[in-house]
Amino acid sequence: MIRPAELIERKRDGGELGAGELRELMLGYARDEIPDYQLAAFCMAVFFRGLTDAETYALTEAMIETGETLDLRSALGRKVVDKHSTGGVGDKTSIAVGPIGAACGVPFAKMSGRGLGHTGGTLDKLESIPGFRVELSTDELVAQVRDVGMAIVGATADLVPADKRLYALRDVTATVDERSLISASIVSKKVAGGAEAIVFDVKVGEGAFMKSREDARALAELMRELCSRFGREAVCLLTDMDQPLGHAVGNALEIREAIATLRGEGPPDFEELVVAAAAHLLALSDLGIDKAEADTRVAQAIADGGAAEAYERWIYAQGGDPDEASLPKAAVVPEVASPRAGYVA
Amino acid sequence: MIRPAELIERKRDGGELGAGELRELMLGYARDEIPDYQLAAFCMAVFFRGLTDAETYALTEAMIETGETLDLRSALGRKVVDKHSTGGVGDKTSIAVGPIGAACGVPFAKMSGRGLGHTGGTLDKLESIPGFRVELSTDELVAQVRDVGMAIVGATADLVPADKRLYALRDVTATVDERSLISASIVSKKVAGGAEAIVFDVKVGEGAFMKSREDARALAELMRELCSRFGREAVCLLTDMDQPLGHAVGNALEIREAIATLRGEGPPDFEELVVAAAAHLLALSDLGIDKAEADTRVAQAIADGGAAEAYERWIYAQGGDPDEASLPKAAVVPEVASPRAGYVA
Repeated sequence: MIRPAELIERKRDGGELGAGELRELMLGYARDEIPDYQLAAFCMAVFFRGLTDAETYALTEAMIETGETLDLRSALGRKVVDKHSTGGVGDKTSIAVGPIGAACGVPFAKMSGRGLGHTGGTLDKLESIPGFRVELSTDELVAQVRDVGMAIVGATADLVPADKRLYALRDVTATVDERSLISASIVSKKVAGGAEAIVFDVKVGEGAFMKSREDARALAELMRELCSRFGREAVCLLTDMDQPLGHAVGNALEIREAIATLRGEGPPDFEELVVAAAAHLLALSDLGIDKAEADTRVAQAIADGGAAEAYERWIYAQGGDPDEASLPKAAVVPEVASPRAGYVA
Repeated sequence: MIRPAELIERKRDGGELGAGELRELMLGYARDEIPDYQLAAFCMAVFFRGLTDAETYALTEAMIETGETLDLRSALGRKVVDKHSTGGVGDKTSIAVGPIGAACGVPFAKMSGRGLGHTGGTLDKLESIPGFRVELSTDELVAQVRDVGMAIVGATADLVPADKRLYALRDVTATVDERSLISASIVSKKVAGGAEAIVFDVKVGEGAFMKSREDARALAELMRELCSRFGREAVCLLTDMDQPLGHAVGNALEIREAIATLRGEGPPDFEELVVAAAAHLLALSDLGIDKAEADTRVAQAIADGGAAEAYERWIYAQGGDPDEASLPKAAVVPEVASPRAGYVA
């Protein structure tokens, strides 16, 4: 049996922990045998000392082991893709990228989280759609991806439960913005969720967790390397987040902006990111096409209305009302001047 | 209302917290409104960033404010002295120093704690004496100090309750050995416990919290300064703790060694420390004597049996059996070779 205080102390003093030790720490935490306060101290020690690549891998593997894993390859007979942002203000990229993938015949499945820190989560945005269900069973998820090509659901409590708890703990103990912990949290969920290829959108700038380009690049490299150790392919895009993406901030407003983008009528900065992410997803998928061909197909899906239709099929399948007119309107929508050309949704 | 996560983040990033913020943090913690895991992260951030002198004072003051304070000056009409060690293996100095003070007419009152980390606490040692009561009410404490000149009791739950909780938390989160937290913990209890003059015995070496002489000196200086801000006088002795003090390690064995020392028959290294600490206490006391005169009186109290008698009166008053023969014996007392001349109790 490990003594958690000893592991915390060793990490605090700059030492390295073994894979078996990290595994016991995480499994003990998930079983409620190791309390939150020891993990809080551990995370703060990691904030200052970091984790080696071997430690990050071991931690990620242990986190996955605390719960169920989804084998979408067996269930669907296809290579399922996913797209993930490291969090930023005004980010709704997945809500636009998924339908483009689905329209192009690439199965897209995403387990999403709530907002972390000051950033809103994809689920929070989707729940502004009347009737939309974020909680699907595994069977429902598989059936929906088969039927309409995509799903974005809340990560169930069975999927990396240790991360669910650690994520909430980090949020209230100022230990969110540490590269290894971010990578372990994200990659554990991607691997457990069954995605075989992932496009990561790593935000950088004042509004993001990574304030400098250098930090963002290091995070991207670590996530790519970590995915590869788990046999998953990954591409990382670095995107500026010095100001909100697009022009809308607010759940329903951001859904409107995603819909507009699927019709080719979105704000240019957001559309550029969506198109790039979708093209990378297609190039990583089992369609067997190169990036140039992927670019063409993405442009076509937006131009011919296929992407917008895929969005409607998806929202409808997941219980929501795809009609934009059904989205709630806030009583007050203030216009905030920005250095960019004005745009009010 | 403060947001604890913001304070943790600011400290983590090297910023300074205001007195009001630290006060809210501590009072919130004592009221169970701020959870252990936030204090654990805070303490680890402090481990890496330290506290300024102003922060340490504010934290100490806030900790005192979470509970009751004892006014021994009003209750006894005398200047009460105390002696405190920062923890080391084999330390039973107070058990010998107190009776010397009492024999010389200096009221000695000490609130003691349990062992922290790998070091045994004074209370644990005293409890090996059959019948000895470590829990006294305030009235009993005052009466006993008036009657027999001294008392060593367990810190009640009402005295700096925030420290009691934080002390236990630090022990299991690898945040014990940080100078500001150590100082705040010790000085808060001394101030709340009513001591007006304190001799600190700061341990340095492999067996102590402070591994280097430099660290020990910095801790001593901080505690002295902190006491002075609270209007208390303090003297700090730095003592080596590369090996256990005296030759006995184990609760009952250490009581025997303390008794031997009161008769002038203790191991030389331990006797030297006891005599020095007692003389400093006398010099700080309201006897109005200088250090040279204090040295003489301490030597006399040991030589004429006054110190040993004061020990017996004290143990008896506190419900214990002062007869050395009544102390329990462990089934096995291994002899451990050390670089020093052998001594087996």
